[in-house]
Amino acid sequence: MRLSAEDLEAGYALACQTVIEGDLEVYIPPQEEITRHLTIERTAAKVSVPFDYDWRTHQTVIKCFCEIEPPTLADNTDDLARLERELARRYGLREVAVPLPVLRTLARTLRQADWRVTVVLDRGDAQPRLVDVLPGDQMQTLFGAAVDIGTTTVTVYLVDLFTGEVIETAADYNGQIKRGEDVISRIVYASKDGSGLMELQSLVATTINKLIERAAMRRKINPREIYKMAVVGNSTMMHILLGLPPEQIRLTPYITTVNQPPLVLANELNLNIHPLARVDCLPGVASYMGADITAGVLSSGTHDTDKVTLFLDIGTNGEMVFGMREWLVSCACSAGPAFEGAGVYHGMRATSGAIEEVWINAKTHEPTLRVIGGGKPRGLCGSGLISLLAEMFITGVTDKAGNINLTLPTPRVRTGEHGAEYVIAWAAESDTGEDIVITKPDIDNLLRAKAAIYAGYVILAHSVGMTLNDVEQMLIGGSFGQYLNIEKAIEIGLLPDLPWDRFKFLGNTAARGAYMALLRRESRDEVAAIAKKMTYLELAADNAFYEQFMAAQFLPHTDLTQFPSVQKVLESKTADG
Amino acid sequence: MRLSAEDLEAGYALACQTVIEGDLEVYIPPQEEITRHLTIERTAAKVSVPFDYDWRTHQTVIKCFCEIEPPTLADNTDDLARLERELARRYGLREVAVPLPVLRTLARTLRQADWRVTVVLDRGDAQPRLVDVLPGDQMQTLFGAAVDIGTTTVTVYLVDLFTGEVIETAADYNGQIKRGEDVISRIVYASKDGSGLMELQSLVATTINKLIERAAMRRKINPREIYKMAVVGNSTMMHILLGLPPEQIRLTPYITTVNQPPLVLANELNLNIHPLARVDCLPGVASYMGADITAGVLSSGTHDTDKVTLFLDIGTNGEMVFGMREWLVSCACSAGPAFEGAGVYHGMRATSGAIEEVWINAKTHEPTLRVIGGGKPRGLCGSGLISLLAEMFITGVTDKAGNINLTLPTPRVRTGEHGAEYVIAWAAESDTGEDIVITKPDIDNLLRAKAAIYAGYVILAHSVGMTLNDVEQMLIGGSFGQYLNIEKAIEIGLLPDLPWDRFKFLGNTAARGAYMALLRRESRDEVAAIAKKMTYLELAADNAFYEQFMAAQFLPHTDLTQFPSVQKVLESKTADG
Repeated sequence: MRLSAEDLEAGYALACQTVIEGDLEVYIPPQEEITRHLTIERTAAKVSVPFDYDWRTHQTVIKCFCEIEPPTLADNTDDLARLERELARRYGLREVAVPLPVLRTLARTLRQADWRVTVVLDRGDAQPRLVDVLPGDQMQTLFGAAVDIGTTTVTVYLVDLFTGEVIETAADYNGQIKRGEDVISRIVYASKDGSGLMELQSLVATTINKLIERAAMRRKINPREIYKMAVVGNSTMMHILLGLPPEQIRLTPYITTVNQPPLVLANELNLNIHPLARVDCLPGVASYMGADITAGVLSSGTHDTDKVTLFLDIGTNGEMVFGMREWLVSCACSAGPAFEGAGVYHGMRATSGAIEEVWINAKTHEPTLRVIGGGKPRGLCGSGLISLLAEMFITGVTDKAGNINLTLPTPRVRTGEHGAEYVIAWAAESDTGEDIVITKPDIDNLLRAKAAIYAGYVILAHSVGMTLNDVEQMLIGGSFGQYLNIEKAIEIGLLPDLPWDRFKFLGNTAARGAYMALLRRESRDEVAAIAKKMTYLELAADNAFYEQFMAAQFLPHTDLTQFPSVQKVLESKTADG
Repeated sequence: MRLSAEDLEAGYALACQTVIEGDLEVYIPPQEEITRHLTIERTAAKVSVPFDYDWRTHQTVIKCFCEIEPPTLADNTDDLARLERELARRYGLREVAVPLPVLRTLARTLRQADWRVTVVLDRGDAQPRLVDVLPGDQMQTLFGAAVDIGTTTVTVYLVDLFTGEVIETAADYNGQIKRGEDVISRIVYASKDGSGLMELQSLVATTINKLIERAAMRRKINPREIYKMAVVGNSTMMHILLGLPPEQIRLTPYITTVNQPPLVLANELNLNIHPLARVDCLPGVASYMGADITAGVLSSGTHDTDKVTLFLDIGTNGEMVFGMREWLVSCACSAGPAFEGAGVYHGMRATSGAIEEVWINAKTHEPTLRVIGGGKPRGLCGSGLISLLAEMFITGVTDKAGNINLTLPTPRVRTGEHGAEYVIAWAAESDTGEDIVITKPDIDNLLRAKAAIYAGYVILAHSVGMTLNDVEQMLIGGSFGQYLNIEKAIEIGLLPDLPWDRFKFLGNTAARGAYMALLRRESRDEVAAIAKKMTYLELAADNAFYEQFMAAQFLPHTDLTQFPSVQKVLESKTADG
């Protein structure tokens, strides 16, 4: 972003270029303030058990009730061997790994509980591992948690591992947000000398701990009763959670420390569940193709369908997978967080006060708005921006290059501080007391973002000798996807021009994938197989991508034959005009 | 111990019966003071590699030098997978377990070292485990440590794992001594509410750390370069090192938490070697048959000989093993620390000033003494006590029941505060300015201790249908054993009456066993096999033992036919007289 001569005269300066020489107060425009919101609660919708589930066979974490023979002078076998003998005899479990903390309380637990104990075991590794030995019969409950660490939002599912049901959900903003909005700024912060990385690790651990506690409290559960956690997130989020320096993720050739994290326990990550609970970090594929996507492929079934499928997860980044049962190819587009409201002058997150839908009267060019929460508008969220852009284009407020037509007979088009702009809400109608506008630079940002995503589709299809016409279904994940207006997303060229019944919105596919992998070891193996099988195309060095990206920076595209339905709309409008 | 009327009048009181009501100072008799001594240095004698040793095949901890291909946009495999690829390609190592701390420094190490690294791996488990990734070529050195935790003395061998050589030894008193002299008092202290156990754990860890540091400093080695430790000790010492409550060890039916400790790392035990180094706690058999004995069996070869062997380790406790290649049977005698000078009025440890050898003139009953360090005597150590008792018996100062003959024409026999006593050194000749004496209660304590050990031999032999005459070799471990005078030990009935050439003194068999298990995985497996194979007889509930114990409380024994050589000596003395 550059400041205009007028801005400079008015005393504006770019914060990122400013050296702070003393104490200062920072005013945040109201639409940037983070208020907890429906979106976050909505992602926590009812989830049903997605498959046949029997904990005895499917679950890696199990409980075994043991009645152990007390020792005598004639049978002086040691405590652990007595327990192991019973586990072998009654449950066929052998060669169990025993962590020292469990051993330290074993003698007293056995005697205080009169040799009747409930053993918690994790069978997730080659060698079964003792997690805890609880006094008496505690076979009533067994809990796990599935966690999706988004750059913006963290979602937790609290799961009853006996029934497989999600019994509570909770979501909140990732505590790291105060150290940067997108992955790149997080990486920069983590790469600073000193404690940047560990501060970010602690921030996300604290977010997870709060969510776990909130969910557990509602059910009167002690978080210590959670004996396994499955975690997904993009590779940067996973690195930070694990305390791995993420700096190489943003430096060419973009190499992660690890895509398939090894066995990690809760106490190594400051997570307040059972300290010896496994934190199963699901595998990713590359620096910009993380476990959130492999989990999304799992839960969307992209890897297990006969239909040629395009799977898109639009969050803070735009990752997509093209494929079916036999093959999977993927790429990530540095779309940036434009659709989350960042880089847009009056953009904001999808919280209350955000305009989420816009209709423009083709004659008067007057807009009608729908605002989240129903009050006065404060800014525009992603779906609002898409809707606005589509309406502006279809009603001729902009041309196909996104230029605003200043000759229209309405005061809503005008030249503002940042050049041409369109007024969506007058100061008197807005919550901020200022005009809410969209400017030419805003539109350019949005065009770049949607062009990057569309170019990704094309490159993936071409990489397997197909075109987008071959797509038999398009599956859209990410909380953002749920509120996308297909018609308008096609009109701006964000989605390919397919029959509407080929689109399916799946909500938080990442969290759902984590949940599936938490439940069933077969599903966990599937994610690993997906990560192994998936080809990742690095677009950073790809000229073909750049060409497609340039061609897509129009509404809906330079090549209108790729958007026949939009062409039809435009023709009918022209006919109307 | 009971106080006499005279003691009470003189103002003496039993410390163990005294309630402390205010501040007090405790004076410790000079002979009880702990001064570092030759014995401790002597245990650290030159040790040679006991077998063919090639680190590549025998050692579980290895180093591998890796030159890794740097990543490119075309090959964006993650750091860990690149390393694993190289380990598989060049060394055939697969499915390596990766601890999180190693992963956290991997990316930077690889890049700072220009993709040339030295990998430290532990192959001791089913799955090989990464211990560290060091920058550059560090193939010059690889160190390990063998540790024997005695109740009294801790011994450390610093070992070059490439050559197999012991490059330094160090020994010192176990820091736990200030919380009790014997295992029982340690258990009592550890079982107190609060931090007793963790204090004792910390004390022994500090002792080990100091010894490691001392040995490492002499060789200019950083203790972090020690990548494996093998530890032996009696079951109480092992429990305390591991932070396991030892209270059940002293309560019937005497059950340990664990005899074969699981995988433990240095950072779990506050040991300052490499934090991810394995601390291999060798297996024991029962509460009073610990890893010091199984290691002693290994290094003495008791498990691997065709000769019927009696293996005895006299330390603070008296454990013994009877057996050969096909079978092993063992027991522990609560002999108590009488032979370490405890429970004997002028007893002391084998430090400078201790009388270690005594000769009594058969006519005059005047003693000749040998004192450790050559100065004035301060008291009697174990070998001195044995020597004294034998001489007193053979020269008729006592009868076979240990009663002192007060009718002898010498001022050295007299009635003292504790009844009949013999003066070994007059006040003027002693370092303490007091007469050094041995009393009837002292003699009774020594008789009980030696009787318990002898009864153990008999019970073990009988348990396999043999007698002590069948013993083809007797192997004696423990630092005490090194200074034992065989003739005199037989004369008092502490050792069985076998031809002298059947006795072998092996020094610290426990430390040597730990060293062998540290070096060679086959030896480590042997210790496990020994622990599994060895039958342990619990004497606490054994009437036959009690009978043998009663019969052995004479000099040398009620049944003199078991000691023909002593009988001959007595007969010749009588003939002389």
